[in-house]
Amino acid sequence: MGRWVIIATERGKRPNDYNVPPVEVIDPAKNPFAEGNEQLTPPEIFAFRDPHSKGNGPGWQVRVVPNKFPALRIEGDLEKEGQGMYDKMNGVGAHEVIIETPNPNLQLEEQPVEGVARVLEAYKVRMQDLLRDPRLRYILIFKNFGRQAGASLAHPHSQLIATPITPKHVKEKLGGAMQYFAFKDRCIFEDVLRQEIKEGSRLVYENAGFVVFCPFASRFPFEMMILPRRQSAYYSDIHPDELLLLADVLKVALLKLSKALNQPQYNFIIQTAPARYVHHGYWTTIDQDFRWHIEILPRLTSIAGFETGTGFYINPTPPEEAAKYLREIPV
Amino acid sequence: MGRWVIIATERGKRPNDYNVPPVEVIDPAKNPFAEGNEQLTPPEIFAFRDPHSKGNGPGWQVRVVPNKFPALRIEGDLEKEGQGMYDKMNGVGAHEVIIETPNPNLQLEEQPVEGVARVLEAYKVRMQDLLRDPRLRYILIFKNFGRQAGASLAHPHSQLIATPITPKHVKEKLGGAMQYFAFKDRCIFEDVLRQEIKEGSRLVYENAGFVVFCPFASRFPFEMMILPRRQSAYYSDIHPDELLLLADVLKVALLKLSKALNQPQYNFIIQTAPARYVHHGYWTTIDQDFRWHIEILPRLTSIAGFETGTGFYINPTPPEEAAKYLREIPV
Repeated sequence: MGRWVIIATERGKRPNDYNVPPVEVIDPAKNPFAEGNEQLTPPEIFAFRDPHSKGNGPGWQVRVVPNKFPALRIEGDLEKEGQGMYDKMNGVGAHEVIIETPNPNLQLEEQPVEGVARVLEAYKVRMQDLLRDPRLRYILIFKNFGRQAGASLAHPHSQLIATPITPKHVKEKLGGAMQYFAFKDRCIFEDVLRQEIKEGSRLVYENAGFVVFCPFASRFPFEMMILPRRQSAYYSDIHPDELLLLADVLKVALLKLSKALNQPQYNFIIQTAPARYVHHGYWTTIDQDFRWHIEILPRLTSIAGFETGTGFYINPTPPEEAAKYLREIPV
Repeated sequence: MGRWVIIATERGKRPNDYNVPPVEVIDPAKNPFAEGNEQLTPPEIFAFRDPHSKGNGPGWQVRVVPNKFPALRIEGDLEKEGQGMYDKMNGVGAHEVIIETPNPNLQLEEQPVEGVARVLEAYKVRMQDLLRDPRLRYILIFKNFGRQAGASLAHPHSQLIATPITPKHVKEKLGGAMQYFAFKDRCIFEDVLRQEIKEGSRLVYENAGFVVFCPFASRFPFEMMILPRRQSAYYSDIHPDELLLLADVLKVALLKLSKALNQPQYNFIIQTAPARYVHHGYWTTIDQDFRWHIEILPRLTSIAGFETGTGFYINPTPPEEAAKYLREIPV
């Protein structure tokens, strides 16, 4: 009922492929994301490079390449079809890797603000490019950071997945924001921002462009949300000066998290508006009712299938306590 | 927007409480779920016992006790209140542990069918009892099985959480089933059952009462669904003869999973209808449109916060392949 799942048949895992991988140590010679090893990845899609360097060679700061084992592929048509009462379509889309630095040991939050801003700009460039493809509905940008789980390569990187459907949770969020706007004639994100700033107890950090706080109904301990002060539904519409301000809050939030909890595993996700509103010109309040934002989700508790199956979360740390603790961490 | 989270302040975890626990070895003397150690748990709520045994002593087969560190408590009033634009209420509810056997090393699927049926009957008894409390809206029964994560005690047990709200995913499922019924005048679960039996490619096992299959849009590799043949919205309305048939399919499904993937971690969840339809007598089609069922969710892939944040799943094993593999495992 409204659920779409990517069945990645080309990855085709058999039962004995599911052994838990050992904690990874990077072998510099085999690290496909290291400078000098560019031939180990598919050809690059985009890079920030030194003026005279050559594509697919050294001399880059940020490099975007297709995922070697993609969940979705850019070639082909959707070929939507029914199968009895179910629906299916081809896995058309994109799956890209954003290599955040040539240095395999420099975590995102350890980069200077300009370095973080460059990564954030690469996100923007790729998002703008893919939004032009009418087959694609949604661009997900996220980062899995995990020594034991999540990321399959330890070299700092983020990922992009472009999908031919809008994910269910995104649809729900958009629907909720639209209803709130219809009812109150105000943006729910503006109201959240106002209340968080006024109460202050869940605030973690802020600057001229962005506010970081632990959400009222945090699903995970030390969960954080980064909300822009300027109303904008699309991350891809971020201004150049905002990139630096966002880099500042993201760096500070991740540094605090890392110091507070000893480099925990985490995911972050950019939640932006779906592409179909860009392509179809029909009337919508999305530019007023929805605001893009970033969710930082630390992986401290084991997410049981229980939570996944019911949408019901038990969080042992109140957001006010988490925020107080994070606020007081010096960075 | 519609999200409720249990903030379990009494568990009150500080940042350094989040160290990963080592793989657990059961110390028989300290195991609170072992026979003879009944004084190590809160007083029992229910048990199947030998005729002349005494409560809170040895001689039981299944024993239900309150969780010693409950996420919710049965005492008190809800005291719903607004807090600016947010809502909160007291964590009134119940959190119980169903100890499945006195034997710390006998997994649920290793019990004889009668033993499994006894556990399933204990679920029913507790659900019926709690459905009488008008403060409670939903009874979740689930099992976390995990050597490394999930369950905090290795002695075989399941859990029950009774909540004062209906979980979001349950509401969505109910809404979807109701819409399908309004549109087609047929139960979506009956249509799923019919199509799965007709196609056969995703079937794992069946008997006179129940069908086990890998769902078309499986979120997790080797995910299974147990669906009753008889229309019934409430697990608590299960007939005595159906308990034995359900025990048979659950035992077979878990045995196949265990053999196929070398005792993987898993969760199972009973998805039943919420209590408020029982208490309020208003007109609804729920008895025709919704059917209780069990979801078995193996934990082979790491559930990234990404999936949690977007509701978007990437499953590397097609359900047809998983079902074929599970069908062919002899039990």
